[in-house]
Amino acid sequence: MNKPSLLPLKGFRDFYPPAMAFQSWFYKNIKEVSESFGFQEYDGPLLESLDLYAAKSGEELVKKQAFTLLDKSGGTLTLRPEMTPSLARMIAQKEDSLTFPVKWFTYGRRFRYEQPQKGRGREFFQWDLDILGLDNPEADAEVISLAASLYKRLGLTSDEVKIKVNDRQYLQEKLIKVGISPEKATSIFRIIDKKQKVDTTTFNEMLKDEGLSSSQTEGILKVLSDKKGVSSSEWLTKIFNVISKSDLSDYVEFDPTIVRGLDYYTKTVFEGWDVGGNFRSIWGGGRYNNLTSDVGSKKAIPGVGFAMGDMVIEEILKLKSKYPKLKTVNTKFLVTVFSPELYEKSLEVASILRDMGNNTEIYLDASAKLNKQFKYADRKSIPYTIVIGPEEVEKGTVVLKNMATGTQRPIFITQLSKEKI
Amino acid sequence: MNKPSLLPLKGFRDFYPPAMAFQSWFYKNIKEVSESFGFQEYDGPLLESLDLYAAKSGEELVKKQAFTLLDKSGGTLTLRPEMTPSLARMIAQKEDSLTFPVKWFTYGRRFRYEQPQKGRGREFFQWDLDILGLDNPEADAEVISLAASLYKRLGLTSDEVKIKVNDRQYLQEKLIKVGISPEKATSIFRIIDKKQKVDTTTFNEMLKDEGLSSSQTEGILKVLSDKKGVSSSEWLTKIFNVISKSDLSDYVEFDPTIVRGLDYYTKTVFEGWDVGGNFRSIWGGGRYNNLTSDVGSKKAIPGVGFAMGDMVIEEILKLKSKYPKLKTVNTKFLVTVFSPELYEKSLEVASILRDMGNNTEIYLDASAKLNKQFKYADRKSIPYTIVIGPEEVEKGTVVLKNMATGTQRPIFITQLSKEKI
Repeated sequence: MNKPSLLPLKGFRDFYPPAMAFQSWFYKNIKEVSESFGFQEYDGPLLESLDLYAAKSGEELVKKQAFTLLDKSGGTLTLRPEMTPSLARMIAQKEDSLTFPVKWFTYGRRFRYEQPQKGRGREFFQWDLDILGLDNPEADAEVISLAASLYKRLGLTSDEVKIKVNDRQYLQEKLIKVGISPEKATSIFRIIDKKQKVDTTTFNEMLKDEGLSSSQTEGILKVLSDKKGVSSSEWLTKIFNVISKSDLSDYVEFDPTIVRGLDYYTKTVFEGWDVGGNFRSIWGGGRYNNLTSDVGSKKAIPGVGFAMGDMVIEEILKLKSKYPKLKTVNTKFLVTVFSPELYEKSLEVASILRDMGNNTEIYLDASAKLNKQFKYADRKSIPYTIVIGPEEVEKGTVVLKNMATGTQRPIFITQLSKEKI
Repeated sequence: MNKPSLLPLKGFRDFYPPAMAFQSWFYKNIKEVSESFGFQEYDGPLLESLDLYAAKSGEELVKKQAFTLLDKSGGTLTLRPEMTPSLARMIAQKEDSLTFPVKWFTYGRRFRYEQPQKGRGREFFQWDLDILGLDNPEADAEVISLAASLYKRLGLTSDEVKIKVNDRQYLQEKLIKVGISPEKATSIFRIIDKKQKVDTTTFNEMLKDEGLSSSQTEGILKVLSDKKGVSSSEWLTKIFNVISKSDLSDYVEFDPTIVRGLDYYTKTVFEGWDVGGNFRSIWGGGRYNNLTSDVGSKKAIPGVGFAMGDMVIEEILKLKSKYPKLKTVNTKFLVTVFSPELYEKSLEVASILRDMGNNTEIYLDASAKLNKQFKYADRKSIPYTIVIGPEEVEKGTVVLKNMATGTQRPIFITQLSKEKI
């Protein structure tokens, strides 16, 4: 047996209390934003059958990035790389008993075998939020507004982060107008999806390699740069109309170059963007109207949603100096122990404080010097300490010390539960 | 490709909103109890190198029950079957910078390939709580008290659930007295661990097969039934003394037959028990003084802790009729949509309610009849609905309906943010 490494696996993270405090804070914001719009929380298993993803998640995600393992009964299992297929399976499973529209959110772990880099790991958390059972631009606008609401709540401004919105059907119709058949559209979408990552010459070459004429290439370039094109799409116009009535509208803009990599999107697609350009696309979503029938429901239940990961958002918050100041210790009192003989007295006082609803720690080593106990409280930023020595026991008091100011005063034990500290 | 199943994998669970509400409630209680004693939250990765477990987790857990997969670089990875090895690795990694005693807790997923049954699955959640850096009975007593505090908080009484405590060193000393060598003690412990699962004859046979004489067997049986034996152990006496001062003492009792299956326990061991006997041992813990050095720390950092799973506790709560009544929808208002033309007005009112801190859903299908929208609010148990028709728009009011009583009244929009509903 090898001596195990003390570090986590490559691309995986340990969550010491400070990192865990960020996770709790991020999750709390996500839960509050989601519930403020009436969404319900759900979750699924971390392992699914590989078959669930094979249909629609896109080749890269399944073949290259999935963590797979063999079931002892022979099947291939996958650590979920994304949530939407599990969601579609759950919806399909109970399509007859659920109340539609379903408005659900979840926050949990996903796994992808990728090269780890800043803002990207092999195990990460994602906020997934979806509406199922509606096929209208109002639902799309709400989902986009929810993502923008989180931006706002985290303190990120519309100068720092955006949401770029497009419609695959709009784009397809434009492609038809320059003479590209619907059959060919999928491969052209894949090229457009790479546009931001390559220079113009390479992009043009890629289109040429697909057999497009130079006038068709020119036509595509025109469509992709036409920011006013949105007005010719009733669907997109409605989405932007709804959002324009809110205070979130500065976060959201039309971008005809957005297509998204996942194969299951059928109409609206959108992406989160870091305006500074350090991370480009930071999360994404869209409308998927066939996914539940792909996984086995009786009918196609239309859906729209997005997935936003924790790691890029955390990096952006750091970059913009908006990373929150968080407490890693939620303890209010440290009850010190004067001597082994007085341990039970300290236990009694700790119990009184706890019963009052205060998070209270007792110093568990009765032989430690008081100074060491004060230092411990300091290091853990516990704001108050309590000392109960023989004199205090006699008087029925404790000494309460404010660790920030250093001031201390006696207080009767009977008074502890009555006084506001 | 096979058509994927709509059900989760065997032994795995989908968390629809009602099941998720239980998870959130259980986690909230765990977090509050842990923090009330000054514990900090942490977490680790779900995948670890197999080597981490090979040392000490016990053969059954690693060889038979672990979900393993091959890393693309050749190593064997394991979906964590338990948390303690990850904890020991994390402590060892930062042993020079952490403030000891470390008092940490976590709640998360674990994976074991077992035969699923009531209260047991292949993917489950566990509350792990540990103190590291102390080797004294006060720390053990605190950890045991914390588990009992959760019992109490969940509404489980000491007639329903217990914590049985023993000390492996105490037992070993007793075995030496009946002539069993320390080398032989480990295999005798394994047999004692099975005592509750077999009848007396089988148990005696098993001891005989280990080569014990009938007088030694008799001696062991005497030790295992001696509930007063605790008084000969200073360590255990101290633990029970501390607990006896609290209102949790009825939950805790001495039981010399408790040894626990995990190899890394060195001294105190304890188990949660269902008094009704439907589940026997429901969780366990103990003192492990060598684990951090086993995984690679410079020195052995003593530790004590436990792991309590969600599934058995959930079953016991159901069995004792103490399963909580939980809301699955936290929405206060459903703002209905009178007509497509008035959609924006409804959006505006929803936004006002949300800004006031109310969870507010807007009905996203502007073409739906009002009746359908009311039914939706009913099915989702949303307590209030809002209607804004042309008449209300003219007057600057909304109609507020209490869904439980059916009463409705007009209210000025400008009044919405001022009135307590």
